[in-house]
Amino acid sequence: ISNGNITQFILPVVCFVWQIAMIILFGVFVRYDEESDAHWSEHKREKNITSDIENDFYYRYPSFQDVHVMIFVGFGFLMTFLKRYSFGGVGFNFLIAAFGLQWALLMQGWFHALDPADGQIKIGIENIINADFCVAGCLIAYGALLGKVSPVQLMVLTLFGIPLFAVEEYIILHVLHVRDAGGSMVIHTFGAYYGLTISWILYRPKLDQSKRLNGSGYHSDVFAMIGTLFLWMFWPSFNSAISDHGDGQHRAAINTYLALASSVLTTFAISSLSAKRGKLDMVHIQNATLAGGVAMGTAAEFMITPYGSLIVGFCCGIISTFGYLPFMEKYMKIQDTCGVHNLHAMPGVLGAVVGAITAATASESVYGHEGLVNTFDFKGKYAERTPATQGGFQAAGLCVALAFGIVGGAIVGFILRLPVWGDPSDDNCFDDEVYWEVPEDEESIPPILEYNSHMVGKYADRM
Amino acid sequence: ISNGNITQFILPVVCFVWQIAMIILFGVFVRYDEESDAHWSEHKREKNITSDIENDFYYRYPSFQDVHVMIFVGFGFLMTFLKRYSFGGVGFNFLIAAFGLQWALLMQGWFHALDPADGQIKIGIENIINADFCVAGCLIAYGALLGKVSPVQLMVLTLFGIPLFAVEEYIILHVLHVRDAGGSMVIHTFGAYYGLTISWILYRPKLDQSKRLNGSGYHSDVFAMIGTLFLWMFWPSFNSAISDHGDGQHRAAINTYLALASSVLTTFAISSLSAKRGKLDMVHIQNATLAGGVAMGTAAEFMITPYGSLIVGFCCGIISTFGYLPFMEKYMKIQDTCGVHNLHAMPGVLGAVVGAITAATASESVYGHEGLVNTFDFKGKYAERTPATQGGFQAAGLCVALAFGIVGGAIVGFILRLPVWGDPSDDNCFDDEVYWEVPEDEESIPPILEYNSHMVGKYADRM
Amino acid sequence: ISNGNITQFILPVVCFVWQIAMIILFGVFVRYDEESDAHWSEHKREKNITSDIENDFYYRYPSFQDVHVMIFVGFGFLMTFLKRYSFGGVGFNFLIAAFGLQWALLMQGWFHALDPADGQIKIGIENIINADFCVAGCLIAYGALLGKVSPVQLMVLTLFGIPLFAVEEYIILHVLHVRDAGGSMVIHTFGAYYGLTISWILYRPKLDQSKRLNGSGYHSDVFAMIGTLFLWMFWPSFNSAISDHGDGQHRAAINTYLALASSVLTTFAISSLSAKRGKLDMVHIQNATLAGGVAMGTAAEFMITPYGSLIVGFCCGIISTFGYLPFMEKYMKIQDTCGVHNLHAMPGVLGAVVGAITAATASESVYGHEGLVNTFDFKGKYAERTPATQGGFQAAGLCVALAFGIVGGAIVGFILRLPVWGDPSDDNCFDDEVYWEVPEDEESIPPILEYNSHMVGKYADRM
Repeated sequence: ISNGNITQFILPVVCFVWQIAMIILFGVFVRYDEESDAHWSEHKREKNITSDIENDFYYRYPSFQDVHVMIFVGFGFLMTFLKRYSFGGVGFNFLIAAFGLQWALLMQGWFHALDPADGQIKIGIENIINADFCVAGCLIAYGALLGKVSPVQLMVLTLFGIPLFAVEEYIILHVLHVRDAGGSMVIHTFGAYYGLTISWILYRPKLDQSKRLNGSGYHSDVFAMIGTLFLWMFWPSFNSAISDHGDGQHRAAINTYLALASSVLTTFAISSLSAKRGKLDMVHIQNATLAGGVAMGTAAEFMITPYGSLIVGFCCGIISTFGYLPFMEKYMKIQDTCGVHNLHAMPGVLGAVVGAITAATASESVYGHEGLVNTFDFKGKYAERTPATQGGFQAAGLCVALAFGIVGGAIVGFILRLPVWGDPSDDNCFDDEVYWEVPEDEESIPPILEYNSHMVGKYADRM
Repeated sequence: ISNGNITQFILPVVCFVWQIAMIILFGVFVRYDEESDAHWSEHKREKNITSDIENDFYYRYPSFQDVHVMIFVGFGFLMTFLKRYSFGGVGFNFLIAAFGLQWALLMQGWFHALDPADGQIKIGIENIINADFCVAGCLIAYGALLGKVSPVQLMVLTLFGIPLFAVEEYIILHVLHVRDAGGSMVIHTFGAYYGLTISWILYRPKLDQSKRLNGSGYHSDVFAMIGTLFLWMFWPSFNSAISDHGDGQHRAAINTYLALASSVLTTFAISSLSAKRGKLDMVHIQNATLAGGVAMGTAAEFMITPYGSLIVGFCCGIISTFGYLPFMEKYMKIQDTCGVHNLHAMPGVLGAVVGAITAATASESVYGHEGLVNTFDFKGKYAERTPATQGGFQAAGLCVALAFGIVGGAIVGFILRLPVWGDPSDDNCFDDEVYWEVPEDEESIPPILEYNSHMVGKYADRM
Repeated sequence: ISNGNITQFILPVVCFVWQIAMIILFGVFVRYDEESDAHWSEHKREKNITSDIENDFYYRYPSFQDVHVMIFVGFGFLMTFLKRYSFGGVGFNFLIAAFGLQWALLMQGWFHALDPADGQIKIGIENIINADFCVAGCLIAYGALLGKVSPVQLMVLTLFGIPLFAVEEYIILHVLHVRDAGGSMVIHTFGAYYGLTISWILYRPKLDQSKRLNGSGYHSDVFAMIGTLFLWMFWPSFNSAISDHGDGQHRAAINTYLALASSVLTTFAISSLSAKRGKLDMVHIQNATLAGGVAMGTAAEFMITPYGSLIVGFCCGIISTFGYLPFMEKYMKIQDTCGVHNLHAMPGVLGAVVGAITAATASESVYGHEGLVNTFDFKGKYAERTPATQGGFQAAGLCVALAFGIVGGAIVGFILRLPVWGDPSDDNCFDDEVYWEVPEDEESIPPILEYNSHMVGKYADRM
């Protein structure tokens, strides 16, 4: 493990310098918004708000916590599936998410939350949800690189990924005025292509040397199911967390709930159908069951109808599971450890298309006049936009997300190829030993010796 | 494993056909309700609702997510306790819950949510909570059968279990006008007897041949505690999720919280008392600690008083733990893998009785006039019903739940005995190998051989 | 296991007697408060409350459930990190929390929630949150003693710890009128010194005899990360759960979120910097990442500013990680299994100091007049108090917390030294075998013998 010496200095320095930079930038730029500032009681009176429960905090905090669980436990544990990279899966996910969310508050804030009165970013509950969303993009990218990069490389990936995301999001949501509450484009498509492009540039022809560790273990598969289930259960909160108050949040949650349910059945079907003797593969269950949530990221708040949501989940469960079949993996020639192409890229693109079609076919007869205006925010300078035009802009949004993911990933990929980041050698990938003090496991002692060693050793004097 | 071939075709077909059926039925019958439809803003004005936070979504969504966690992580991980059936425990739980909740939205909707104006089922947050409740009945039944049935049998169990539940629920809650917010009768009693009757009909005299796998492992016991704790913590949400807004939800949560706390102490006491040398048994802690929550399913929203809740939890912790003692298991002669008789059947029946007594003794002096009317919904055609009469109807509700569980279980049990479902042979029960690609554990391979076995094995051609 | 016989009788007796005492005391003293009582609809009319969503339940229930998860899953799983004490970690945590919360409702109720009209304690959502907080103090103390005490000793620790906490809390919050919403002083400082003092009195010079088990395993480290992450994610709910409605809760959540994020980076930095070859240590990641949450317990609801929160987290991550370095452990000469000195004591004291300074420097220009009055509750007999004076009282509060922790711990420590509690011998510490039926692990048995050993062993007579 020759990279130890490098890591020993770079990682602490990066963590310290970047955290100090965050403190300085927050000191200059970031303040509480009206709803989290102690002047709220005066603000309430001015705006004739009659109750504290109208503070946006109460509309969004339960969903925020669900999203937060998805980011840290969901993504984190989903990435524990490798038999000897569980520490790295959940640990580095923790590190880059914690850095990313601070950086995202600044980056997104500069675009969305800058108060023209004093040039400062005003943060509240919606900003911290959006920061979690922004972080999700980088964590998806991490999924493609799991086990093959150093923590410093991940910090760099996040350093560049967050502003790329913020610009992309600004263009899509504000310049193009696209609706994408759950981020099929903004989060999933961008994040997946960002990671896949980096992985493609960091291609390791000799990765086979780590093949023995590139697989799951019985218990690590169960750990990964913790991640899967928290992602699956809380996805309705993800897609509804920043939707409109009232029917928007309500409908987004229901649509996502249905799409996810539908994905589960088709995932089990394809998984069983594709294997010898009909056996199910945990990799499929852990991942493809979530495809419906990804694919509802754009259309969740639209009037896509309950059966429309089921259809989306149905198709994405199939497509995503197919992506995980071995012959597909060979065909793709991408070293994509977690299969983010199957879980985020394909369903994300599909979700964007579904969203564009649903938007283009929206009508006042289905939404009501007010409903249409509220759902697509046809207000102010967008008051004249029609659903058909909106559909076109939705499609344009997808192109922006793809472009930012691929171009951004290419640039960052080349930066990460510099030989200074302490990445693991080809025969040390997928191995926690490289970056972690790993406890010696009782079980890792050769069985033939174990029994005796127990008799004379460790447990001999038990009780 | 001779059943592989059968499963290979049946499971995918069942998943596909039933999911397509769901899509068609949802297309014909299911629409958004007033609070999740884009017409909400007009609806709000008509009904003089002044704030979006009055949308039922905000009253119920946090509890919904807690219930959702109980269904997927709670039940799922509780069933990972077997040393080599963790995949099946959490995985099949996931499959049948995802199918069941769609089917439940239809079945319960036909009884409860049909809009007479257009003959369509209108769904919102309360419906998806109820769908999770309905699914819980089938998952309880799965607990009795864990490790002994095929996924296709579980799909059939769910296919019949959901409409049985919906009819039973309709009779109990609407025809008899019984109160059962947390489902001591409707969910637990029905679900447990449904599963136990099926298990009795599928009795395997030679199950001993799988005895080596019918036990827990150290880590699988810790995984199961994840299930236990999420069930235990969120049970207050389960029992209050569809209670009346305001004091009803508030009281239901507090009563359940107290009953659960009380169960824990008596479970530890009986567990320690019953074992040689006073050692505690994880099986008891994993299960009997939850009995107080089951038993408060009916009375949680009543004015049972805080000490009344403690008494209920006290008794049920004792009864449930006794059920898990080995001599009881022998006496019962039921192959009940998870002990649902002890955790759901007995506490469920007791909870129904407690609810009937509490209802029968309700008075205006305790509830206040309005409180009594609201709590028992003595409105409309039930305006003249007295607490004493209500107590009688509550008892009748219990009989209905028992009858549906036992008769329904008998019918479904005979269907599941047909030799076409690909169930495991007697010496293959409790073994994930039958239905899953199980990774070879690093630990179970002598280190010297490990590298090679992986080189030629499963992951040799990955990437 | 020579203590088995003692435990066999004491634990069940303690559980039964104390639970029965709870029932009697609740029967005499505890009733529903106005918001959980069926008279709520009348109360609502009297107080001109126009909507059920103004019931405090809806302001606090989501945070309550997050806190509940922290208590049972957070603390419970954080303590599963030892390779062979996971049952005891999560199991005894469960036992004492379940007892403690009942006892806390009484003890805190006598001080805070006694209704002078009828001499009864009126409980609602805020009381059950406070009960969870009170329990947290005892669970922190358990962290110092993990693996070295019997469950009966833990019950005694809780029996005395809860009233000590309640008195301390009453003095700090009500007599001194100190603000400490997240309990840097009241919970963390008290709990840590309570546990550390007990541990000091129960010092075991020969604890080395259990050294082989005083360490983590690969999977137990991953289990512990479940605890870490749920604590980390939900800490914003912990610090905001009983803050003022509106901006208080909102700001407390945001400040805590930021401090926690900042701690993560400095923890990774110091962990990497301190180890040979820059390797990260899971113990640091599991614990020191949480220090920012502890340290924001007092100041979270103040206008500490977002960058102020980052600075607090930055410093505490460093201090806490340093505490876990081996040379520090040697220096301290305290047998502190979970390192509560590093995670709760030091950051708690620092949090109290930060709170005192922030309070002392508060001004109307920053808070607004109303904001200052609301945040520090300068009302009634405290209407004349100035921020500077408040700062002094905050500092006094810290002294009270320290005094109660150390003196209380000393008294309880001497009680726990009595040789009647069935504690493990020096060579049996950190071993679940002492108090639990531990399943034989498949993996630890030579494969060839496995089948037979099971046939004649533990499960041979099951079913």
